[in-house]
Amino acid sequence: MLLQLDRDHWLIDGNDNIAFSIRHQGNCLFRQQSPFQLIEVFNTPEYGKTLAVDGLVMCTEKDEAAYHEMIVHIPMFAHGCVQDVLVIGGGDGGTVREILRHPSVQAVTMVEIDEVVVRASCQHLPTLSSALNDPKLQLIIGDGIEYVQQAQDEAFDLIVVDSSDPIGPAEGLFNLSFFKEVHRCLRSGGVMTAQSESPWFHAQAFAALNQCLQTVFGQAYVHPYLVFIPTYPTGMWSFAYAAKDSRHPWQNCDHSQISQFTKKENLQYYNAGIHQAAFQLPTFVKTLLGEA
Amino acid sequence: MLLQLDRDHWLIDGNDNIAFSIRHQGNCLFRQQSPFQLIEVFNTPEYGKTLAVDGLVMCTEKDEAAYHEMIVHIPMFAHGCVQDVLVIGGGDGGTVREILRHPSVQAVTMVEIDEVVVRASCQHLPTLSSALNDPKLQLIIGDGIEYVQQAQDEAFDLIVVDSSDPIGPAEGLFNLSFFKEVHRCLRSGGVMTAQSESPWFHAQAFAALNQCLQTVFGQAYVHPYLVFIPTYPTGMWSFAYAAKDSRHPWQNCDHSQISQFTKKENLQYYNAGIHQAAFQLPTFVKTLLGEA
Repeated sequence: MLLQLDRDHWLIDGNDNIAFSIRHQGNCLFRQQSPFQLIEVFNTPEYGKTLAVDGLVMCTEKDEAAYHEMIVHIPMFAHGCVQDVLVIGGGDGGTVREILRHPSVQAVTMVEIDEVVVRASCQHLPTLSSALNDPKLQLIIGDGIEYVQQAQDEAFDLIVVDSSDPIGPAEGLFNLSFFKEVHRCLRSGGVMTAQSESPWFHAQAFAALNQCLQTVFGQAYVHPYLVFIPTYPTGMWSFAYAAKDSRHPWQNCDHSQISQFTKKENLQYYNAGIHQAAFQLPTFVKTLLGEA
Repeated sequence: MLLQLDRDHWLIDGNDNIAFSIRHQGNCLFRQQSPFQLIEVFNTPEYGKTLAVDGLVMCTEKDEAAYHEMIVHIPMFAHGCVQDVLVIGGGDGGTVREILRHPSVQAVTMVEIDEVVVRASCQHLPTLSSALNDPKLQLIIGDGIEYVQQAQDEAFDLIVVDSSDPIGPAEGLFNLSFFKEVHRCLRSGGVMTAQSESPWFHAQAFAALNQCLQTVFGQAYVHPYLVFIPTYPTGMWSFAYAAKDSRHPWQNCDHSQISQFTKKENLQYYNAGIHQAAFQLPTFVKTLLGEA
């Protein structure tokens, strides 16, 4: 029985009242302080190699599929024919890897503010970073907020906001002016998804982000959805789907096409049944959104 | 930033490699060693009053609704007209409270092995134990395994196995001979649900319990479903639904009836959308069950 946990051997997330801890093996595979944050990679017995930013788990080899499959394939199949994609953040490469499974995609632009995250992943997390040298990808090390401010109108079919928590460098990815630019850069019929925190652990941030999106896209066109992610606090995580010009999140999906794709690509989490089910929210989550 | 967690101030669940911790306020509201286990009640700042058994969280005031609503209302609405119910375990009272929200229910028998759990809940968890003095309830302090062995054939429309983990007193609630008796005690068209652990944290126990149920009820009539429970390890928890004589888990549900009920009863988690969605499993969970 564990009697004591300490930061020399455990990655500990949480607050003063709850904690979620993953043991690592002491020796750090990678550690570098970037201009933005401390980037580390640890070996953990439970979840394999684990990327940590400022001491908090960003992703692990064993459970990252849930996050990356769900932030990507939901909007991909909701849209049906995505060609041009913008990813804000996502430096570990998992989101780009999932996007590039879709043959319709012609070009992906990824704007990651911290090149140290990309380097750590390329050096130590090959299963995540495998697509970062794909010829369809343009990788820009820079500020995603400035990028969307300067991007052309209606340049993308899909924009994925794969950010960390809304403190530090990702803070500006959770506000109205940013999402207005995202909306402007989407083509008619385009869609976006954003990492939107835990309805249990960050109830306020979750509600505020959805409120922002409703203001920009219209209330009827914003649809939060849920994913089980065991290495994030409380295990309940959310993404927000928003559509420019009313594209429904699941009504146009071709289930047999999804099934073929998920089998061929050997996905671990996403499937045709999950697609619609993820949008069904527990009542207390609806209440947070003012819906119940 | 938390530097260290210790058992004097934290309830810590997990194994050698991962830990889930809830801070309590030091003073224990209730502590008694029963013949089976150590029962404690703590005040926790994050989740309110918390019942712990052998140092592990059993339920908390703030998130217990997810567990109790989902283990009860899913089989209730799948069946449509439950009159006689047997609950094995469930000493805190939350399951009985949810069952007795349904006016069709005429009698509930609850068999809890540990009277100290019942006493702790009655003394300190009034929102959980509120229905334990209902005249429709017969509360038996005794062994649930012996009870079902001696129970009449086809005596119940619904049997809920609300057990703790399959170590200690609940071990015998996870095996073939127990579920054969449960099957025998169900009426034709009857249904059961069982707490079936976390597909992430107890993958083997989850798979083994479903295998048992498939052997007894037939593969097509066993349907696991998932619930977000933030105070259990990994946050992903499962229940197993099994039907005697093929009653489908959602196809006969009346959505408008569910919606009326959930509003009237002010439920926190379960709703008409969640009912079907909870049965949609991520691919890795299907793989554990040999389905993918």
